[in-house]
Amino acid sequence: MKKFQIAAIPGDGIGKEVVPAAIDILEAVSDLHGGLSFEFTDFPYSCEYYLEHGVMMPDDGVERLKDFDSIFLGAVGNIKLVPDHVSLWGLLIKLRREFEQVINIRPAKIIRGIKSPLVNPKDFDLIVVRENSEGEYSEVGGRIFRGEDEISIQNNIFSRKGTERAMRYAFDLASKRKKHVTSATKSNGIVHTMPFWDEVFEDVAKEYPDIQTDSQHIDALAAFFVTRPEKFDVIVGSNLFGDILTDIGAAIMGSVGIAPAANINVNGKYPSMFEPVHGSAPDIIGKGIANPIGQIWTAKMMLDHMGEEEIGTVLLDVVESVTNDGIITPDIGGKYTTQEVTAEIINRLKAKA
Amino acid sequence: MKKFQIAAIPGDGIGKEVVPAAIDILEAVSDLHGGLSFEFTDFPYSCEYYLEHGVMMPDDGVERLKDFDSIFLGAVGNIKLVPDHVSLWGLLIKLRREFEQVINIRPAKIIRGIKSPLVNPKDFDLIVVRENSEGEYSEVGGRIFRGEDEISIQNNIFSRKGTERAMRYAFDLASKRKKHVTSATKSNGIVHTMPFWDEVFEDVAKEYPDIQTDSQHIDALAAFFVTRPEKFDVIVGSNLFGDILTDIGAAIMGSVGIAPAANINVNGKYPSMFEPVHGSAPDIIGKGIANPIGQIWTAKMMLDHMGEEEIGTVLLDVVESVTNDGIITPDIGGKYTTQEVTAEIINRLKAKA
Ligand SMILES: CC(C)[C@H](C(=O)O)[C@@H](O)C(=O)O
Ligand SMILES: CC(C)[C@H](C(=O)O)[C@@H](O)C(=O)O
Repeated sequence: MKKFQIAAIPGDGIGKEVVPAAIDILEAVSDLHGGLSFEFTDFPYSCEYYLEHGVMMPDDGVERLKDFDSIFLGAVGNIKLVPDHVSLWGLLIKLRREFEQVINIRPAKIIRGIKSPLVNPKDFDLIVVRENSEGEYSEVGGRIFRGEDEISIQNNIFSRKGTERAMRYAFDLASKRKKHVTSATKSNGIVHTMPFWDEVFEDVAKEYPDIQTDSQHIDALAAFFVTRPEKFDVIVGSNLFGDILTDIGAAIMGSVGIAPAANINVNGKYPSMFEPVHGSAPDIIGKGIANPIGQIWTAKMMLDHMGEEEIGTVLLDVVESVTNDGIITPDIGGKYTTQEVTAEIINRLKAKA
Repeated sequence: MKKFQIAAIPGDGIGKEVVPAAIDILEAVSDLHGGLSFEFTDFPYSCEYYLEHGVMMPDDGVERLKDFDSIFLGAVGNIKLVPDHVSLWGLLIKLRREFEQVINIRPAKIIRGIKSPLVNPKDFDLIVVRENSEGEYSEVGGRIFRGEDEISIQNNIFSRKGTERAMRYAFDLASKRKKHVTSATKSNGIVHTMPFWDEVFEDVAKEYPDIQTDSQHIDALAAFFVTRPEKFDVIVGSNLFGDILTDIGAAIMGSVGIAPAANINVNGKYPSMFEPVHGSAPDIIGKGIANPIGQIWTAKMMLDHMGEEEIGTVLLDVVESVTNDGIITPDIGGKYTTQEVTAEIINRLKAKA
């Protein structure tokens, strides 16, 4: 009997709606598979928590979370309550860094029954490996001068260690897939860090003679995600480029509401963290119509990561059978609620038992 | 009789094919409109020039170009001959900076007869105003340490002057359009320059009480270009964000081969420069199938900028009548050559006379 300890942080907005839904699914999964159980511990860290306590997390927040097997996060940020850079750097990005979740992985592929906005979406199935700890997301910088002469400076900082690590992760992943890695660069415009990125990519590529590679400037690559996503297998990008590409990946799947993500701690010292790509969606809070699929697919990534790939695969199959029958939320053209979609997935999981 | 002096720099690859085509069009335009003529002077600056001379342009290259009314550029860069950061910073980006072309404008809209990859492309008509002189494209940076400790640093530098200037340009443009400006930000992840960008945006917005505004993080915005481009009017973005968004804009129009751009000198001291969004496309050099429409639409932007808006409008109408009849190049599903498309546009221009 395996028992996983999961820290649940619903966070803000619809995070509070989709995390409970996905937890119901995970409970159902464990009911069906005698050998597996989860213990969930809830943490209220969020913008509301900030309004009450002046911080997104208590001082010992990291300490309290560090022994869990995984962290299951909803969404962070509600600009009406707390400025984004405060809420995100106080919670989401803080956890990514404290727990050395240096890799963010985000798949994008056609899900049956969910309409892509693309005319002829060939059967794409790609995965973006995003460097998740450095690069453009840097605290180093500041301002100088006042008034019309004011200047704001931000350092992008790329380490060989961090860059190699992300690239190796991408190559390892590609070895288990279609054996192709695309590097997202912009060495024609960003003349220090991106030529460096290219060099490291060439070096790492040499370690993987079986893997085919190409390198695309981020502007062209963003466009290719729209015009020929089926050409990609694994794409490796910096923190910012990975961020942008994965939202486009979500868009071509049909909705940011279905896109999953995993923040991976690769050295095994700390928990990994699983959070969908979507945000807190303040405009639909409380309506009961938030799409739970992003969070549920994220739960599948958590299962995969904890070694339960078989069950993860069953779960995604069931999700696709439900979407394929049109039991979907309004954001993707359906008329069902968060609850109804979740309940149907649970029913079909039970029928599989 | 107005006579414009135009410096033509075909540059690399298909630039050498589409610039002559667009010049033929401009000659035809001038034949039809007695009051207007062009004198073109060719400059061979390109990667081939680099191989011969060790520089992309001679020392007095800027001097030689500075008195022209406009610069009409094809494409720069051919990675097989010269590394991109050398060719681009030695020519394209150098000219943008030396001639203080601080704004880059790039429209995206549906062109009749050209299929968008989007299922249901509502009638979008947007324009991206890109800051073109600073930001992420900065020479400031370098490396430190060697081996596995190596670090590469790049400074993003945003000045209030440059940021305000781009934003005012966007607001002024919006006043003549649908009176809406969207700011492309990423203040949740990039914590120095992007909150600064947001502040400047708020300040400038106050000067334009008639204009509606919103602010979107670049990841979400890139996705919205795919899922609801019709919601946008003018979008203002940094050098990098503008670069990425405009390639997505080109993709949703149906091809990067049709997307036009203008690098605008706003203080009137130096020529503006007109270059399509596409690159030199090394894979199709010499096949005679390069799509001339990006370059021709770019010629229209040049006409507009030199005060010949009426003729510019006629030209784009004629282009659309030709695309609408399926006389298009292979990249957008046609079977015609660069020459055939160009000849047909000239025929129809003549018929309008
Ligand atoms: C070639 C490259 C340096 C350039 C840029 O990034 O500015 C191009 O992508 C463009 O958009 O004109
Ligand atoms: C909310 C924001 C800081 C975050 C990011 O940019 O990393 C989000 O967009 C994501 O992709 O998880």
